[in-house]
Amino acid sequence: MQLRKDPIVGRWVIIATERVRRPNDFPRPERRTRPAPCSLCPGHEAETPPELFAYRDPPTALPDTPGWRVRVVPNKFPALRVEGELERRGQGVYDLMNGVGAHELIVESPDHERGLGRLAPPAVADVLAAYRQRIADLKGDERFRSVLVFKNHGREAGATLAHPHSQLIATPVVPLTVADELHGARAYHDYRERCLFCDIVRQEIEEAARLVLESEHAVVFAPFAARLPFETWLLPRRHAAAFEHIDDDELREIAAMLAAVLGKLERALSDPPYNLVLHSAPFGVGESPSYHWHFEIVPILDGLAGFELGSGFHINPVPPEDAARLLRDTPNA
Amino acid sequence: MQLRKDPIVGRWVIIATERVRRPNDFPRPERRTRPAPCSLCPGHEAETPPELFAYRDPPTALPDTPGWRVRVVPNKFPALRVEGELERRGQGVYDLMNGVGAHELIVESPDHERGLGRLAPPAVADVLAAYRQRIADLKGDERFRSVLVFKNHGREAGATLAHPHSQLIATPVVPLTVADELHGARAYHDYRERCLFCDIVRQEIEEAARLVLESEHAVVFAPFAARLPFETWLLPRRHAAAFEHIDDDELREIAAMLAAVLGKLERALSDPPYNLVLHSAPFGVGESPSYHWHFEIVPILDGLAGFELGSGFHINPVPPEDAARLLRDTPNA
Repeated sequence: MQLRKDPIVGRWVIIATERVRRPNDFPRPERRTRPAPCSLCPGHEAETPPELFAYRDPPTALPDTPGWRVRVVPNKFPALRVEGELERRGQGVYDLMNGVGAHELIVESPDHERGLGRLAPPAVADVLAAYRQRIADLKGDERFRSVLVFKNHGREAGATLAHPHSQLIATPVVPLTVADELHGARAYHDYRERCLFCDIVRQEIEEAARLVLESEHAVVFAPFAARLPFETWLLPRRHAAAFEHIDDDELREIAAMLAAVLGKLERALSDPPYNLVLHSAPFGVGESPSYHWHFEIVPILDGLAGFELGSGFHINPVPPEDAARLLRDTPNA
Repeated sequence: MQLRKDPIVGRWVIIATERVRRPNDFPRPERRTRPAPCSLCPGHEAETPPELFAYRDPPTALPDTPGWRVRVVPNKFPALRVEGELERRGQGVYDLMNGVGAHELIVESPDHERGLGRLAPPAVADVLAAYRQRIADLKGDERFRSVLVFKNHGREAGATLAHPHSQLIATPVVPLTVADELHGARAYHDYRERCLFCDIVRQEIEEAARLVLESEHAVVFAPFAARLPFETWLLPRRHAAAFEHIDDDELREIAAMLAAVLGKLERALSDPPYNLVLHSAPFGVGESPSYHWHFEIVPILDGLAGFELGSGFHINPVPPEDAARLLRDTPNA
């Protein structure tokens, strides 16, 4: 594996380096949407690499045995390898480095049928606490600059395993999306001396038209310039650039909010494919006064992601105000 | 329709403003992949809005009658409306304007079964000449700043009509992708006093590993940091920021190159869905020494566009060197 940088826009891409002989034999991820029991189910712990972390009852039970509530394992088919040095180098106008990084699966539940959108809030809190623990741990590795935590739900959103899981990729580079956000948020802060995201939270509460849920610690809303129908963001009210600085009270309540909005999306749109992405400050800017961590949920409803990806141009046929109203009107459970 | 700006990254999004009542009744584009004759076939000219432009034999024949080789009509279901003023305004931290713009269909051929990848080079040259003519015409409208020309081929790439066509959207804003490219290319030019794209052309010819086709006026190659398998770019050798400055010699030869590479992709990958996007300088920077127009072709092979879109993170399982070799080895016709 290599990390290669597009010299025009500065986007880093993970490029496989295994040779491909024929157009159709490239390593497509196997679509293992098979029924339980699967390799992520309890009793099948030996079918994954040894676990990195778990919450289990009792906490003293042996690793890689059943009894866990959340379990974190290395990805068996990682996009990046955890061993080795980066060896940053040039090749004419291009830049590249070795594909060094961590790629982990966070198994959200022992139940093959119940992931974030169907778990009780305390179980969702376990998943978020596992995110926090893994990020804090990977921060100690000085080769890494950023951690991307995400969940692909449904085949159209890129899921290859049916058992509910999130993924984590620690990289020695900052993804372009996060870099663009950091840049824009810093420009706003330079001018106004306020956090743009804090201002957005205030305005969304005041306008209320795009609000889906509101609580002591968080707001959930359809963003003003939503790219796709039913795109939904969750922002914490308290300013914090990095997710791993979340405290236990916030974590419990935000877990309940996340469970509620995923449940609403599932009921309103008949279990749509979606991507959940945690946007959090890269290592080293965790104290930024201008960046503000948040979750973005992007349902993939209409197969149009290809055009949006190719052109960078977005046409959203559903006004975010309508999406928010429909989600508000969807019962909580 | 409105154009709304994401205040964080500066992305403009077209947002429909028709009210949506239920989650599933939003205006999805009808998938009219019906067989010939369709509303874009000869003899059915009355089923589209009156044509804006056409190449026909004889050239003196009446508009909106059969006999055309390429025909340009307004989109019957436009994403932007051509009438009205922009009325740029703020709403708290947000910015918006009226959804003013042009949305046109370039019908590539009277033949329901033959689009860019299957037409003879002179017919492809007609299509490119129609792009050039329409861009030059829209440049006269001072409300517009940029024209996006693209082709969605296949349902997974967003195509809603089976009859081969390209689309053109003229907007009062610059798409984020193009803005990012302009920014990166300018930074390189400031430092090196050379065009980054010209340097890329030189390096791709010299390295040859990612080269697919080469001619007097253009090179076709797999980009060094390709986002997706078989992503392919076509760059003109002569520096020009804006496509509409292409001369007739270049146009003829580049049409042949485009036809050849689309044909190769079709044969190598069994007619894959793809997006073809023309990247060209916005109006007003057409003489830029740092920007360089080009085509990007992005096959949509694996349904992973959703994840890439949500995260901005790209994992490409096919080394561009292998993709280029496989395309080189694919016969030209």
